[in-house]
This record gives sequence, C-alpha cells and structure tokens, in this order.
Amino acid sequence: MLVLVTYDVATKSTTGQKRLRKVAKTCENYGVRVQNSVFECIVDATQFKQLKLKLMDIIDSEKDSLRFYQLGTRYQSKVEHIGAKESFNVEETLIL
Amino acid sequence: MLVLVTYDVATKSTTGQKRLRKVAKTCENYGVRVQNSVFECIVDATQFKQLKLKLMDIIDSEKDSLRFYQLGTRYQSKVEHIGAKESFNVEETLIL
Repeated sequence: MLVLVTYDVATKSTTGQKRLRKVAKTCENYGVRVQNSVFECIVDATQFKQLKLKLMDIIDSEKDSLRFYQLGTRYQSKVEHIGAKESFNVEETLIL
Repeated sequence: MLVLVTYDVATKSTTGQKRLRKVAKTCENYGVRVQNSVFECIVDATQFKQLKLKLMDIIDSEKDSLRFYQLGTRYQSKVEHIGAKESFNVEETLIL
C-alpha cells in the first residue's frame, strides 16, 4: 500500500536540524521524497509499523509532528502532481 | 471528500515568498492547515477543480510544485497524527 508521510520538524536549533535530517534519512529507506517534507512509501503493514516506530523515536513529540495517510493499493488515480519536478511512479523508482 | 494538498514553493526570492503566502491563503479558504505546507480540504468535485485552478494560477510551475491526494469520504481511519499539535477533525473545524 501507499503511505504518505508528511512532517514538520522545528529546525530553529541545531538539534532540530539533526532530527530533520534523521527523519528524512529514515523515510528514504522506505520510500521516495516527492516534496521537501513529503515522502511516498510503498510498504506492507509490518514495514509501516517499523517506519512509524523509527520516526517516533527520532522526533521531539512536543515540537515536531508526523502525519501518515494510507492511500491503499489503488492509489495511482488518487495522486496528482502539478508544477516543478515530474511526478513519477513510486513503485518503479523503488525497484530500480 | 478529503483532499490533501501539499506544496513546495521556491522562496529564495521575494516573489517566491509572495507566491507561498498566496498559496497558503487560498488553501485556507478550502480547508485546514495541518502542517507547514500541508492542508486538508473537505471539498466536492467542483470545489476541488476551483482550488486546483486557483493554485495553478499562483505558482511558478517551473519552480514550485503542488500535489493533491484524494482520500475519499471514509478517510478518518486513514489519517494518523503523531507529535506536536493535536490531530483534529477537519469537518468539525470547518463547521465552526
């Protein structure tokens, strides 16, 4: 299934900037960055749980936030991209 | 239906900053900001079209990007929030 991960990390402090980098790096292991703070991940239920736990471990839950959107398996028609950087097929990108 | 709008606007220039403000302001008329560049909008098909056209009119399509995710009407169980700022019911917020 496609899971969309969006995040806000408070980056005023250097520790915040570190958290931001870690969040992005962790998401990179599960999916593809489609915008600055938006990742699309093709995961199964177990991987989704893992990803959530890892991210929860990184963020400062009083300052940062994570949002997860489950878009199921038939998500192609539900996603639309306009503007810079062409939209791409996440699954193809992951296979490469 | 719930439509998620995420955007990246190139804000290095003052015109970019203007575009960013305009994008956010337009989204505010259709939904609720849940993260810095993420809006959740409860819209019908007509409103969705309007919103898209308005945003496309604002952005610089060579520098900025928009993404739209259609989450349908039964989206409650598909959305999860972790960390700062409590998750809220978009429809309730819009009614207030």
